Amino acid sequence: MELFYLPELSEDKINFKLTGDEFHHLSKVLRAKIGDEIFVTNGKGLIAEAKLKVIGRVDCDIEILKFQKFEKRKTPLIALLPVLKHEERFEFAMEKLTELGIDEIQPFTSERTVKKNFRYERSKKILIAALKQSKNPFLPELKSLSKFEDFISELQPDDFVLYGDDRGSNILEIQNHLQKSAVKRFIITVGPEGAFTEDELNLLKKVNSVPIKLGEFRLRSETAIISLASQLKIFSELIN
Amino acid sequence: MELFYLPELSEDKINFKLTGDEFHHLSKVLRAKIGDEIFVTNGKGLIAEAKLKVIGRVDCDIEILKFQKFEKRKTPLIALLPVLKHEERFEFAMEKLTELGIDEIQPFTSERTVKKNFRYERSKKILIAALKQSKNPFLPELKSLSKFEDFISELQPDDFVLYGDDRGSNILEIQNHLQKSAVKRFIITVGPEGAFTEDELNLLKKVNSVPIKLGEFRLRSETAIISLASQLKIFSELIN
Repeated sequence: MELFYLPELSEDKINFKLTGDEFHHLSKVLRAKIGDEIFVTNGKGLIAEAKLKVIGRVDCDIEILKFQKFEKRKTPLIALLPVLKHEERFEFAMEKLTELGIDEIQPFTSERTVKKNFRYERSKKILIAALKQSKNPFLPELKSLSKFEDFISELQPDDFVLYGDDRGSNILEIQNHLQKSAVKRFIITVGPEGAFTEDELNLLKKVNSVPIKLGEFRLRSETAIISLASQLKIFSELIN
Repeated sequence: MELFYLPELSEDKINFKLTGDEFHHLSKVLRAKIGDEIFVTNGKGLIAEAKLKVIGRVDCDIEILKFQKFEKRKTPLIALLPVLKHEERFEFAMEKLTELGIDEIQPFTSERTVKKNFRYERSKKILIAALKQSKNPFLPELKSLSKFEDFISELQPDDFVLYGDDRGSNILEIQNHLQKSAVKRFIITVGPEGAFTEDELNLLKKVNSVPIKLGEFRLRSETAIISLASQLKIFSELIN
């Protein structure tokens, strides 16, 4: 059954309307009919099974049959994602991070960022599409664009950063760090196409961080962050 | 310095010609000049530093300054990759697997494959581009299209298959299996958009294989195989 995004979904009532893009997807793309059943989620851990009651010209009425609530992981995983020159690569990274269940995406520019514009609304749509496709009940929180050094300078001592670096460790070697209950947020990051500068690497060294070696060869930024997210997920059962 | 693909590169001579796509990339895209230095690789572990001697209309002469040889890993990693409906997702998977250093890519169709055509030459070009970009001296061997059941039925007892499956184990739980010196080839695989059928899963259960759980949510095929490759790489130092 298809999943739709309904941010206003809550457990205190059972009648809702689907409008806008979601209505269009349901009625024009999938050609749903009255009586069909769908899933809806608020992107905050609540999923519901619902029945189509009325299909109008610009919206439809649904009635909730059953609610299901998912627990958010205790220690959020944040992807500090460089804006990339090739937008389709940046968007691919956002899609994959959503499928993989990252809690927050913080796009950044840094000294060697080639292209500095970030399209918030377009990016949000990609996250919603990936959420629906992957049946993930948690929509990653999409932050507005930040400067790398600003984000790093605001980190707290109980934040823990893992960053892709050729000279880093195999993630297996630092698994004890990952289980420290004192960690409040995990942050994964990689440099943009031109990599981090020495100054940026020095900033990272001043905070609670470890470099992670992701392979023998040079990975594109989007490959590196997907790889890092995939590797960190192995330990997420220990983290949770 | 840029890396170019020169399959005929060997250590027994020092003068070679770059032609075709590689010549075009060098002279038309990068506008290289006589005296410039580049890297070339045969995609089989040999990389050389070379100097441009003559730039012609359709080719150029290079002279090798220094050879460097890389050792291939002892236990090859093979990606058994489903042909996907969306060609750009299939191509993205091939690019990422090359960056991640997979040794062989075996495209397959299975019962639920939606789109069955596979463009060999186009795929090979994607692998070469990813090889050059990632400075990987090993071009993955690209096999011609196979049927899933044919490939599985030809596996040997010392082949070991890891496949993405919701009901599988965390890869940490099977790390002892990964270190078994008796394993001759590691094969990673995931189902196509419509997933494996029960019959196909039963085929997998009859060979030396383990299901790996890659996350809480439904991953697209290309996400799942990139994730599985990234996770297996953590243990590749143990494997090698």
